[in-house]
Amino acid sequence: MLGVEFPICAFSHCRDVVAAVTNAGGLGVLGAVAHSPERLQSELAWIEEQTGGKPFGVDLLLPPKYVGAERGGIDAKQARELLPEEHRAFVDDLLARYGVAPSADPPRALGGLNISPKGYEPLLEVTFAHNIRLFASALGPPPADVVERAHDKGAVVAALAGTTEHARRHAAAGVDLIVAQGTEAGGHTGEVATMVLVPEVVDAVAPVPVLAAGGIARGRQVAAALALGAEGVWCGSVWLTTEEAETVPVVKEKFLAASSSDTVRSRSMTGKPARMLRTAWTDEWERPENPDPLGMPLQTALITEPQVRINQAATHPGSAARELATYFVGQVVGSLDRVRPTRAVVLDMVEEFIDTVGRLQGLVD
Amino acid sequence: MLGVEFPICAFSHCRDVVAAVTNAGGLGVLGAVAHSPERLQSELAWIEEQTGGKPFGVDLLLPPKYVGAERGGIDAKQARELLPEEHRAFVDDLLARYGVAPSADPPRALGGLNISPKGYEPLLEVTFAHNIRLFASALGPPPADVVERAHDKGAVVAALAGTTEHARRHAAAGVDLIVAQGTEAGGHTGEVATMVLVPEVVDAVAPVPVLAAGGIARGRQVAAALALGAEGVWCGSVWLTTEEAETVPVVKEKFLAASSSDTVRSRSMTGKPARMLRTAWTDEWERPENPDPLGMPLQTALITEPQVRINQAATHPGSAARELATYFVGQVVGSLDRVRPTRAVVLDMVEEFIDTVGRLQGLVD
Repeated sequence: MLGVEFPICAFSHCRDVVAAVTNAGGLGVLGAVAHSPERLQSELAWIEEQTGGKPFGVDLLLPPKYVGAERGGIDAKQARELLPEEHRAFVDDLLARYGVAPSADPPRALGGLNISPKGYEPLLEVTFAHNIRLFASALGPPPADVVERAHDKGAVVAALAGTTEHARRHAAAGVDLIVAQGTEAGGHTGEVATMVLVPEVVDAVAPVPVLAAGGIARGRQVAAALALGAEGVWCGSVWLTTEEAETVPVVKEKFLAASSSDTVRSRSMTGKPARMLRTAWTDEWERPENPDPLGMPLQTALITEPQVRINQAATHPGSAARELATYFVGQVVGSLDRVRPTRAVVLDMVEEFIDTVGRLQGLVD
Repeated sequence: MLGVEFPICAFSHCRDVVAAVTNAGGLGVLGAVAHSPERLQSELAWIEEQTGGKPFGVDLLLPPKYVGAERGGIDAKQARELLPEEHRAFVDDLLARYGVAPSADPPRALGGLNISPKGYEPLLEVTFAHNIRLFASALGPPPADVVERAHDKGAVVAALAGTTEHARRHAAAGVDLIVAQGTEAGGHTGEVATMVLVPEVVDAVAPVPVLAAGGIARGRQVAAALALGAEGVWCGSVWLTTEEAETVPVVKEKFLAASSSDTVRSRSMTGKPARMLRTAWTDEWERPENPDPLGMPLQTALITEPQVRINQAATHPGSAARELATYFVGQVVGSLDRVRPTRAVVLDMVEEFIDTVGRLQGLVD
């Protein structure tokens, strides 16, 4: 169905990771919700050039519920106007307390807002002008016209589901491939664990094939996912500490040092629950005396520029801003303990998978 | 090591389930923390009689931290004296609002308090007077003298771990078998999912063998657990809807109807986070305006008698008390949809496990 050697899909915001996974025999999927159409255009052209006809994909967010949905979405300027004074003041104070200097520049272009038809339509146009093998919706069932356009272009349509109910809805919307994602995953995630969710979804949407996501970073976990009934896996976190990843250095360091207990589901980055490293940033947003995160996409509008400033300040040794630095990552962060080439990660996964199946076979013989 | 045909350990408070699993070729483990010594004595004698020399075990809670630890534990009377008026009033009001009649009888003997040396010593004496194959600590590393006594009696010592750090501590305490239990499990549980926790613990405590717990109710999940590196599985929730289970009828009905999204980790039953069915009971304890649960064992002292009264009231059709009824259960509750004999559950697990390994082998060949 996907034309791959190994049933390993790699979600990444980094074109180098996408190309490296595709070239290693898996399928790289570019997370493009924060891209401008121009940037997406140039990155897809680059990936095509690097992978020479091998399959790759694009991932967007198509949430049914967000602030401004009733008017087809809001742009960055409208979003900024809707930010409550209390929230701006809290973020300003938070940054000051952790030694992040006030912004000298005018506000930057805001990323991560392309979640409404107004926002994602230009990205879809760019996407479908390229020869993509897979189009994925990471939030919400893809609308009928999007499914149709993907199919016209010969692309497989995938959608992520954190509950069996969502998976059923995706299947009914004509999705070709369900990604059943457990709570242990990084980024937007539900509450049901992969071990429970995958067999439930497999049975609920059969004969639609299912990929397992959440908690998968090595071959034993790939074997477990396939044992649960998945046809393949969808991994994100494991690529964040590869040589190719553009992960902010202080965050990469934290990932390499973190244990599997160091993540938290928090609304502090996008307004919807997403798993990320637990740091002073997530702790501050959880304190009862501080304001609750805003809805999507207002929270992103509120925190995108502060996040850039935190990561800049954190490059100075000894800066308190290092305590704030965080990023989306799943519980497998506990097993990420060295920087490796993406290709080596893929090939080690495959090798350990094959060894694991051999070991299981030995138990039954 | 355990002398079993299948590496399936079954945790249950119900002696009939324990005996049925052992007789089906697994290993039944009786959860005895709420038992009186007299009751434990008679139940172990009954299990021995039913299983004719086949292996079974006993499980207690040996938490290092609890209210009254500094004086070696508190008894039921002392616990009742420590209950804050605010908490008593909240529970009285809660029960009244849901149509549970005030208690006519004097307070019952309180269960679930045997978590201190004072409380569990008489249970250990009874336990080690029987020919048990496995002694398990579900909370906390077993003290050195307990490990020694178990070993003197030829019993394997197991301990449950929700983090890799806890697993290392158990191994250092001389535990023979680590049960790595993911967040999806019912009862006392941590935050890391089985998919992530098991391979981490396996690598951290090698060569100590590991059982996987959390999210395991069928053969595909057993195969996944073994793929992750576990030597076997430890299951609890799946037995709660068997023919043999003494689950309260209204709760059994709710379990059969529930989805995998219908559980929550809550401190409302024991004072420590435990996964259970989300009902009006757990919702009420989560409201910010209501008091926080007390520590262990005070929360148990507070709610044991009210729980009995709720379950009695819930037997009347149409009673609002039905909304409150809950019990410990893991996310696999979503797959429990009919009442079956315990033996059939075990044999189906084994059959699906063998089929799954064959399917995986086919993928590699």
